[in-house]
Amino acid sequence: MSEPTLLVLDTDPSPRLGRLTGRASVRYTDEAGLAAQLPLADVLLVWDFTSDAVRAAWPGDGPRPAWVHTASAGVDRLLCPELAASDTVVTNARGIFERPIAEYVTGLVLAFAKDLPGTLELQHRRLWRHRESTQVAGSRAVVVGAGPIGREITRLLIALGVQVALVGRRARRTIHGVAELDRLASMADWVICAAPLTESTRGMFDARFFGLMQPSARFINVGRGPLVVEDDLVAALRKRWIAGAALDVFEQEPLGPQSPLWGVPDLIVSPHMSGDTAGWRDRLGEQFVEMYELWSAGEPLPNVVDKQRGYVPARDRSE
Amino acid sequence: MSEPTLLVLDTDPSPRLGRLTGRASVRYTDEAGLAAQLPLADVLLVWDFTSDAVRAAWPGDGPRPAWVHTASAGVDRLLCPELAASDTVVTNARGIFERPIAEYVTGLVLAFAKDLPGTLELQHRRLWRHRESTQVAGSRAVVVGAGPIGREITRLLIALGVQVALVGRRARRTIHGVAELDRLASMADWVICAAPLTESTRGMFDARFFGLMQPSARFINVGRGPLVVEDDLVAALRKRWIAGAALDVFEQEPLGPQSPLWGVPDLIVSPHMSGDTAGWRDRLGEQFVEMYELWSAGEPLPNVVDKQRGYVPARDRSE
Repeated sequence: MSEPTLLVLDTDPSPRLGRLTGRASVRYTDEAGLAAQLPLADVLLVWDFTSDAVRAAWPGDGPRPAWVHTASAGVDRLLCPELAASDTVVTNARGIFERPIAEYVTGLVLAFAKDLPGTLELQHRRLWRHRESTQVAGSRAVVVGAGPIGREITRLLIALGVQVALVGRRARRTIHGVAELDRLASMADWVICAAPLTESTRGMFDARFFGLMQPSARFINVGRGPLVVEDDLVAALRKRWIAGAALDVFEQEPLGPQSPLWGVPDLIVSPHMSGDTAGWRDRLGEQFVEMYELWSAGEPLPNVVDKQRGYVPARDRSE
Repeated sequence: MSEPTLLVLDTDPSPRLGRLTGRASVRYTDEAGLAAQLPLADVLLVWDFTSDAVRAAWPGDGPRPAWVHTASAGVDRLLCPELAASDTVVTNARGIFERPIAEYVTGLVLAFAKDLPGTLELQHRRLWRHRESTQVAGSRAVVVGAGPIGREITRLLIALGVQVALVGRRARRTIHGVAELDRLASMADWVICAAPLTESTRGMFDARFFGLMQPSARFINVGRGPLVVEDDLVAALRKRWIAGAALDVFEQEPLGPQSPLWGVPDLIVSPHMSGDTAGWRDRLGEQFVEMYELWSAGEPLPNVVDKQRGYVPARDRSE
């Protein structure tokens, strides 16, 4: 029995894939070569998760991989109607990014509450200017996106004494349905977006939404850039509809030097790094190797994406 | 029976003191008038807790207040040998600053781990530069100072998954004695100072100490400035003995524009604000009014300072 063909989208993947030697025929491709290689592959590993190439290269009715794994939490760059309609299994990197992103968001909340950006700016100007800061305990947050990342953010903020409302697509147990989002956001000190990008979430944070937030509130996005109408956020900050925002993800990444977003008052811009703690590429490689071993053995895969919804649905037990 | 005389060191105290109308004869004084007023006062409220004037003005053997309360956690600016030897009761503002300071420290830890200062600097230069950050969960901290502030810092960091060693003057239950500090600090990612300033803690963080810390570690001081030999810390940062530091307190406060500390690489300088969240002056005023009511009724006061040790000793039950 011949080894399955594992196609890796990236020319510089994790050395951890070396553990598949003898169990997979591993081929590497860049975006340009993807379309020609896809019909020959049993498995596609989307290691360069910033690429949109899979959408364009996905075969129609012809031979295609039985399994596609992406080294990311979001699958929005990957899914096209043809892939969604096919019987190909899509999996993601659930389990790698939750804690780092939750820590990152918690750090942003505390940085805003304690005005750390103001402190650094005053330090630069050599000015001793005492200010009162805000206590985080007792403040109110809304976390939008009830997947594992949103739930981990919720857990850490609760540990700091924040009152958190977690909002998902539909209400269930401790999760509020999206119909309650406006009411919750209007009372919140923090609105945190950790939702997947789908057709129903695209552009959901717009002028109307920022208009109902409190003038003292801050907005944080660690989900996907197109969830936010960036021009509307910039206007909301300039008009002081809200007190601050932090974006780690953007409509266009990387952000070019000409982007107006770099210079908006009270907006923190970071380069899509919230989930990437030291060793993250190794952990992604190890995770894929473990999943490949399950797949080779004919075992069910974890982290299977619901291709209609566009994310890994919560397991009933964990809801 | 005439009202007791309450002398307030400050000319602009909390409006909450108005609640003492009819129960105290309240007089205000600045530093210059303190010496003349002290012998006439039953109670001294040190509202301007940045003042060193009480040391200089404290009466020797003559009449003096039976009770001195300071609107601060530390009492180092207040205690002089004559006051320590007297039967005057000294109390502090224990209970007001613990949570705000613990949040502040937690925010600094996360800001270092996620390189928020680097992100803000790169944003200023309009540069998209992805970096790997550090996971806080699983990192190791040493908190020096086992009073209520150190214990609250410990509690919050543990909630984030940090392994915390709390170091106090003497070992007891979950607290390490100061003899273990070197060993613990040599393994720590974070060394956090929340100790009182006493003769045994002055200058304890010096070149020798920074030399035994890990090159990847950071030092944070929210205790008192003179605990740290500032020149030694600056040298340790410049020589890369340690990776970073944050000071909220200094040998001289406020820091003048000529201080070299403003411009040291990887040093965050803030203006003694870690404990001061919105409403803190009101809370200090309310706390004093409550204590005054106990004192008037002849009830025992809380937060009584051990004038030999220079801080409020832990209650046995809470150790």
